[in-house]
Amino acid sequence: MFGSVLQKIRESRPLVHAITNYVTINDCANIMLAAGGSPIMADAPQESAQITAACDGLVLNLGMLNDSKKEAMRTSAAVAAECGKPVILDPVGVGASPYRLETAAELLNSMAVSVIRGNASEISALARGHAQSRGVDAVLQGEPQTQLRRMKELSRKYSAIVVQTGETDLLTDGETVYEIHNGDPMMKLVTGSGCMLSALTGVCCAADPEHLLEACACAVCMMGLAGELSGAETAARGGGTASFRVGLIDWVSKMNEEILNGGMKLEMRSDDDAAVCGN
Amino acid sequence: MFGSVLQKIRESRPLVHAITNYVTINDCANIMLAAGGSPIMADAPQESAQITAACDGLVLNLGMLNDSKKEAMRTSAAVAAECGKPVILDPVGVGASPYRLETAAELLNSMAVSVIRGNASEISALARGHAQSRGVDAVLQGEPQTQLRRMKELSRKYSAIVVQTGETDLLTDGETVYEIHNGDPMMKLVTGSGCMLSALTGVCCAADPEHLLEACACAVCMMGLAGELSGAETAARGGGTASFRVGLIDWVSKMNEEILNGGMKLEMRSDDDAAVCGN
Amino acid sequence: MFGSVLQKIRESRPLVHAITNYVTINDCANIMLAAGGSPIMADAPQESAQITAACDGLVLNLGMLNDSKKEAMRTSAAVAAECGKPVILDPVGVGASPYRLETAAELLNSMAVSVIRGNASEISALARGHAQSRGVDAVLQGEPQTQLRRMKELSRKYSAIVVQTGETDLLTDGETVYEIHNGDPMMKLVTGSGCMLSALTGVCCAADPEHLLEACACAVCMMGLAGELSGAETAARGGGTASFRVGLIDWVSKMNEEILNGGMKLEMRSDDDAAVCGN
Repeated sequence: MFGSVLQKIRESRPLVHAITNYVTINDCANIMLAAGGSPIMADAPQESAQITAACDGLVLNLGMLNDSKKEAMRTSAAVAAECGKPVILDPVGVGASPYRLETAAELLNSMAVSVIRGNASEISALARGHAQSRGVDAVLQGEPQTQLRRMKELSRKYSAIVVQTGETDLLTDGETVYEIHNGDPMMKLVTGSGCMLSALTGVCCAADPEHLLEACACAVCMMGLAGELSGAETAARGGGTASFRVGLIDWVSKMNEEILNGGMKLEMRSDDDAAVCGN
Repeated sequence: MFGSVLQKIRESRPLVHAITNYVTINDCANIMLAAGGSPIMADAPQESAQITAACDGLVLNLGMLNDSKKEAMRTSAAVAAECGKPVILDPVGVGASPYRLETAAELLNSMAVSVIRGNASEISALARGHAQSRGVDAVLQGEPQTQLRRMKELSRKYSAIVVQTGETDLLTDGETVYEIHNGDPMMKLVTGSGCMLSALTGVCCAADPEHLLEACACAVCMMGLAGELSGAETAARGGGTASFRVGLIDWVSKMNEEILNGGMKLEMRSDDDAAVCGN
Repeated sequence: MFGSVLQKIRESRPLVHAITNYVTINDCANIMLAAGGSPIMADAPQESAQITAACDGLVLNLGMLNDSKKEAMRTSAAVAAECGKPVILDPVGVGASPYRLETAAELLNSMAVSVIRGNASEISALARGHAQSRGVDAVLQGEPQTQLRRMKELSRKYSAIVVQTGETDLLTDGETVYEIHNGDPMMKLVTGSGCMLSALTGVCCAADPEHLLEACACAVCMMGLAGELSGAETAARGGGTASFRVGLIDWVSKMNEEILNGGMKLEMRSDDDAAVCGN
């Protein structure tokens, strides 16, 4: 299913600009390279817009936000929107910080964002419009049906694909819903699993901007499957969380159509859509 | 001995805010997760105090200090002190930079700091109040007895536990002194061994704020023992310093009461205390 | 050939100040430690000059540049030049950003830079004086002879050694040219291969400031050979890019005279020099 996304990445080697979180910036660059993309990190307002203009996509990560990055995000998002390049927003910790939530709202209101990728706490905070959760980790927010309704509303409001990751990953463009069941429990014990997925989503979307929902689903499956493969290896070798992280990036670099098609656990969710979208 | 600290970490999953050094920020987040804590990194004055208010502890690391972080540290330390949350200060390179030393002095004088964790050069610079050493690595500073006397004075002056790490680790609350002999020579060849220990200390103290000296000793033993276990594995596999670092975090993630009690090398030092504290 | 550089590193444990890129800052510190150096990272103008004054060398990396770092680079470069300490400039992405190119030009014009280390795109942009390439990765720029002529001109203009890395690495002090053929294709799939080499070059030059060309050649051979050794191991174990990166730093930490002399692929290039330098 995702062979064409992978092929496009390897053929075009998309250049992706990331304005991102210093905690996980190295992991993000490495996973983008591992997938076949070409990352460039730059967050000074003095050069940000020019760099975005030369790139195929943009990733904005709100972790460790500051005013200088915020300004760079604003100008880069405007350039990307003007040129029709995909923009991925990762609202890290937005549920814990009004400052990040305001910045997210400003970026979303500019209508430049193509994809929002977060955990349940973050997506809920964006949907509600106010902060509430503790920390950066996901906290279960309401019933699954409520969550899905919120995701669809958020998606339609900002004309953006919404990707909510957790034990089950959910993706929607406001109509179609994908449910993905790949992943490994160790992913929560490594910082940057979410950030890396957003970076990888940037590479997939930049390579296949005409099929953003598929590109997002491809990124989520790749990441989750790489996690499963690394988790199995780590357990077999008696390793811990740092070995798991090495294996996670290793498996993204070793991913191909055969491995991906053999291991991905994706289904389209249609049963209760009408009811969910009814209002 | 430290079973209760470990158990409390796993039960409460303490949320710890770190305003820290970009060199080792990823390692710090990963070791906090490996131990069972939940890290949040944020260093913009715009959000720092609000984030501290929602957390169980605060880690301040002076590596790569700048004026924006300094302001964030000031406001976060004030919030933590007001709420009675443990604050760990890691005075990285304070012996080499008057700017860092002044910042350390300001933070200490606010009486918000619960634990100071540094190497011999750093602790000596704080005790003397002026910079002198070269670089960020430890340089032997005076006789052991002189060092211990300085540590106790520093501890009493600021009502803070002082943890000095090196070949032998020393901890004091101004009265009791622990000596810990865990560790591996490779720890000095990996950047962030000290920063990671301070981050881990933040997790232990946030989980058990009523027993800070024991929480600090637990962190020091865990880190040193993880180093020993990784060192043995690295040597057996013919690895180098990067493999050692992976193993170090792996072993923190695999640490449990049995491993810790079986391997920790801690003794209370009481013999010469009277003489040392006599003045 | 490089035994004396290695020996000097291990004897003097040179202290090297780096004002560098947050993407790869941890890898840079770790490779400097692995080689036997002692890194200190500091980029606040408030302390930068004082720290440089206490160090044996300075590495300036333009990745993720901002105005505060630019100011720190300016003052640190002035101090290093005044004290005759080697300064390594890594013009990361200078071909993609006028802001970085202007900063590079300013640093070069101050005549403080001893070594310029970049890929073909970056060296070409510096030689031409204007930006043109996409992203941070190398793009082939003109014929090999043209490239070599540009390198020599650049070297003479700024009295700096020029190190251009890629499939074949070229080094020149404006007269002598070394060609180095060590390396592994996986190096391009790991972020920071170039940054790490610049950091390692800083350690070698700081240890042997009287023989900068040899020190640079030693760093390039060490890095390339470590890449080859790690690449072979990674392939044998079925690993990916993250395992390769662990092995790369491991092998720098295990490097010794015997391994280096046995594996380095260096030749002096003299055949067409006259023609090349003729103008």
